[in-house]
Amino acid sequence: MIKVVLIGTGNVANQLFQAWRTVQEVDLIQVVGRSEEKLQTFAPFTETGQVHQINREADIYILAISDDSVQEVAAQLNIKDKLLLHTAGNLSLDVFDSSQRCGVFYPLQTFSSSRQANFREIPICIESRDKDDLEQIRTLGHTLSGKVVEISSEQRQQLHLAAVFANNFTNHLLKISQELLVENGLDIELLRPLIRETTAKLEQLSPVDAQTGPARRADYGTMDKHLDLLKNELHKDIYRLISKSIQTNYGNKL
Amino acid sequence: MIKVVLIGTGNVANQLFQAWRTVQEVDLIQVVGRSEEKLQTFAPFTETGQVHQINREADIYILAISDDSVQEVAAQLNIKDKLLLHTAGNLSLDVFDSSQRCGVFYPLQTFSSSRQANFREIPICIESRDKDDLEQIRTLGHTLSGKVVEISSEQRQQLHLAAVFANNFTNHLLKISQELLVENGLDIELLRPLIRETTAKLEQLSPVDAQTGPARRADYGTMDKHLDLLKNELHKDIYRLISKSIQTNYGNKL
Repeated sequence: MIKVVLIGTGNVANQLFQAWRTVQEVDLIQVVGRSEEKLQTFAPFTETGQVHQINREADIYILAISDDSVQEVAAQLNIKDKLLLHTAGNLSLDVFDSSQRCGVFYPLQTFSSSRQANFREIPICIESRDKDDLEQIRTLGHTLSGKVVEISSEQRQQLHLAAVFANNFTNHLLKISQELLVENGLDIELLRPLIRETTAKLEQLSPVDAQTGPARRADYGTMDKHLDLLKNELHKDIYRLISKSIQTNYGNKL
Repeated sequence: MIKVVLIGTGNVANQLFQAWRTVQEVDLIQVVGRSEEKLQTFAPFTETGQVHQINREADIYILAISDDSVQEVAAQLNIKDKLLLHTAGNLSLDVFDSSQRCGVFYPLQTFSSSRQANFREIPICIESRDKDDLEQIRTLGHTLSGKVVEISSEQRQQLHLAAVFANNFTNHLLKISQELLVENGLDIELLRPLIRETTAKLEQLSPVDAQTGPARRADYGTMDKHLDLLKNELHKDIYRLISKSIQTNYGNKL
């Protein structure tokens, strides 16, 4: 049984908590946070408290808090002999003091409070300075996921950047797309099969081969019409810039 | 039995041909195209020929050719008493002569030659100047799809523009994302669950609620690091511009 203290009450902490609650090998002995209100969500199921009340009996402490706070809170905890992990895609191990037993436990997924994550399919990227600690993190990872991979800080930063393009930015384009439908009295369900196919296709084709559309085929007439239809200047800029980037890939004239 | 002549030998023509081959209510009596080589694909299954050899016995003629060629080829055909349809998202009915029986048959999907489309789930957007013609197009649409919707030329253009954002542009971002993995020796499979979740989430949440990431939470430290990691200037510009657009939506300072 691995005894775990979760530090944080946001999306990642919530998702980890929900997932581990159903796992026999993990005992979530405490959730630590600043907000009494947010701690209420966890209180029916485990001990809760502030940082200065931290339970010192755990094997592993997990910081699921904002990137900016990791270094400061890690220093406050004063648990150098215990394994302390952060869950951030974009922070190296340097945020921890060199004498701290530490590591990374980064689940590569987008978490929203209203939707429960299925951790079995989520890659957990792990890292540590110490071989034994790494194995302990790996064991913890396997209580949730079928895919636990050791990844260096440099690679994890690149992976996080790639995830911003693959999730955050595509989601924003889907938002613009949905707005265009709503503004023109069109049912947003009309685009659902296209959105499904956009990603389904990539299980079989590379995105280079899957690319279609006016920019891909250098159809300037259609691109000009589209720019006329767009009212939002930022959306026009996005249209121009991504079209230009697509064309660069296919060797069309700009 | 609806007798159909398909004009065109590209992706859309191929997908429609494959789909109608298995449909009892449609008899594909001819495929018309310029390239003898491309016509070979269809020759084992039906009559093929050039525009001047067009079979005049069909009920419906479908132009599945590039947008730029529709008006010219439509004029060449000289079949004003027969129903002539185009399949373009971005062309109005004005490409047809005012005395031509005509309409639109626009399947809203991205088609690649190596992947067979499932038309049952693809919305077919239809339009005509004439009520009876519209009903004939609707009947033809229902031989393929469960979703046949009448949409005006103006709305169809907006829908096509929305589709460019939802498919063409997201696909390009997924390409950039995949490149970052490959360049850094990372397995592209690592991002697959995130990409699946990005769209699966939207069956339940609006893209506004689903938005996460550094731009959403105004995490400038992470954004600066990401810009340092990107080497390609166009990709840097895309990162800045989409982040700015996301921030505009959430009222963060720019």
